[in-house]
Amino acid sequence: METQPPVFADVIDAARRLRGHAVVTPLLRSDALNRQVGGRLLIKAEALQRAGSFKFRGAFNRISRLDADARARGVVAWSSGNHAQGVAAAAGLLGAPALIVMPTDAPASKIAGTRALGAEIVAYDRYSESREDIGARIAAERNATIVRPYDDPHIIAGQGTVGLEAAAQAMALGIAPDAALVPCGGGGLIAGTALALRHQFPSINVHPVEPEGFDDTARSLEAGEALSNDPAARSICDALLAPTPGEITFPMNKTQLSPGLVVSDAEALAAMAAAFRHLKIVAEPGGATALAAALTGRFDCRDRCVLVVISGGNVDAETFRQALDG
Amino acid sequence: METQPPVFADVIDAARRLRGHAVVTPLLRSDALNRQVGGRLLIKAEALQRAGSFKFRGAFNRISRLDADARARGVVAWSSGNHAQGVAAAAGLLGAPALIVMPTDAPASKIAGTRALGAEIVAYDRYSESREDIGARIAAERNATIVRPYDDPHIIAGQGTVGLEAAAQAMALGIAPDAALVPCGGGGLIAGTALALRHQFPSINVHPVEPEGFDDTARSLEAGEALSNDPAARSICDALLAPTPGEITFPMNKTQLSPGLVVSDAEALAAMAAAFRHLKIVAEPGGATALAAALTGRFDCRDRCVLVVISGGNVDAETFRQALDG
Repeated sequence: METQPPVFADVIDAARRLRGHAVVTPLLRSDALNRQVGGRLLIKAEALQRAGSFKFRGAFNRISRLDADARARGVVAWSSGNHAQGVAAAAGLLGAPALIVMPTDAPASKIAGTRALGAEIVAYDRYSESREDIGARIAAERNATIVRPYDDPHIIAGQGTVGLEAAAQAMALGIAPDAALVPCGGGGLIAGTALALRHQFPSINVHPVEPEGFDDTARSLEAGEALSNDPAARSICDALLAPTPGEITFPMNKTQLSPGLVVSDAEALAAMAAAFRHLKIVAEPGGATALAAALTGRFDCRDRCVLVVISGGNVDAETFRQALDG
Repeated sequence: METQPPVFADVIDAARRLRGHAVVTPLLRSDALNRQVGGRLLIKAEALQRAGSFKFRGAFNRISRLDADARARGVVAWSSGNHAQGVAAAAGLLGAPALIVMPTDAPASKIAGTRALGAEIVAYDRYSESREDIGARIAAERNATIVRPYDDPHIIAGQGTVGLEAAAQAMALGIAPDAALVPCGGGGLIAGTALALRHQFPSINVHPVEPEGFDDTARSLEAGEALSNDPAARSICDALLAPTPGEITFPMNKTQLSPGLVVSDAEALAAMAAAFRHLKIVAEPGGATALAAALTGRFDCRDRCVLVVISGGNVDAETFRQALDG
């Protein structure tokens, strides 16, 4: 397992590998939302990525580095759904069989999506079993490669292409964002994205956004050491329920990030409704947290240009209806 | 009023004017939808355009050609909602006051969206009053410029940038589509899009897709002359209710288009649900008709690469819920 954090050149290399495979997701604007926050939002719509979230980027970058033999032996991953689908889609394109360890309470759409992409699924109980142990055992049995959700330099570099692409899109508009708001679970997306953004815009502030009860990164940044969440915590933001900051991601994030922001489930649902109304995209609860931080004023966007990442859109119709009803 | 149909160079010129103002909307792919149709769909997600539909492109191209005096006198348009919002957004950016004549039964989201973009609204009854007469009278009173929804070469050329952009995106993937499916109301979008696509891919077949009861273009193409719809017809596809093919668009479309396809309201709603599930975009009923033609097999996509335009996403939560429930 490689443990060296990626550098900017690794993000460039990932972008080269992803070209023609990943969707160049648009940077959306909404006059209505800009008026609402009193600033200028540039919204990176990563829900439109292949398999419905940014996770395809890291998975493809990682699996594309396996040689033919390793690809044939297959890959194993664990995930509540977005990494699962990203790995399944990337593995399918690269000719590697994929087995995914998924929690029994993952959204039905994510389980169905992963299966439809051709992956084999093994279920586990999120609150009593260790997905890492189950995944490691199966990988050893099959001599398969584990594709970690965030603690892998190639995964982080792949996710960093979100920031690289957004930076290029902002520059094409002649804009240097003052800040970026990025949903944060294990911290892979924000670690890579901050790496790319800060290279292009050295004075940008990159803030992680987490759901209430899962603010381990916000608290860890403040404490200067990795802290965990209360195991009894629950949130509708199923994509952001990592128990603690990652072993590679946190040392990166400690030096890169500005203070963390926290939003409630209700605020994430309201941001989903705003994305429906004003952006015409489907955001999942966890994917909408950064937008929620902007819309609630948790982050003050007044007179600022703020890059907001909507990280995923894999949501059941029932939860989406709940957001529209809110 | 200019009546000469646009040529390919006009689309290129429109693209130059739109650069940095219009969203470069993505060309989306879905492995699940591809499996479902047995072919390869390239989905141009124009619901993500500024103001929620392709209409911004034509409106901006048109209004950007007015001199400072004409801009100050303002613009007048009539529309059920998408052209209204496109004109309001473009006029706002270009410093022109906008007045929009809208039917009383336009979706609430479209009326609210138009007003939020700063336009003045005059309501009329779709089935007893003439929006053209009302618009022409107000424009004469104010010495304002009428921005027609489709019978204007600059509007058609602007909408044609959808096809120009999609062609470039397909070529970047190394793909030449066999066919294109495009929602069709007055025919401006498909006239411009076919112009651009056929320039790049001379053998492509471009098919208009219309809702049941509003298949004037399909029947007119077959008859070789412009026919009208039954005034008693009704459809949920509020963006595609033009009574008859346009005076500039139809002569263009007669020489450019392949046979028209027709879908039901229920099929459009089902396509909206598929766009939610697999593409993570919000499509409105009219905007989803071309996708519906592909998913229902009305157009046989087997072993073909088919460009599908989703033209707009301005839909009320209630109608969207109806699509999710279906």
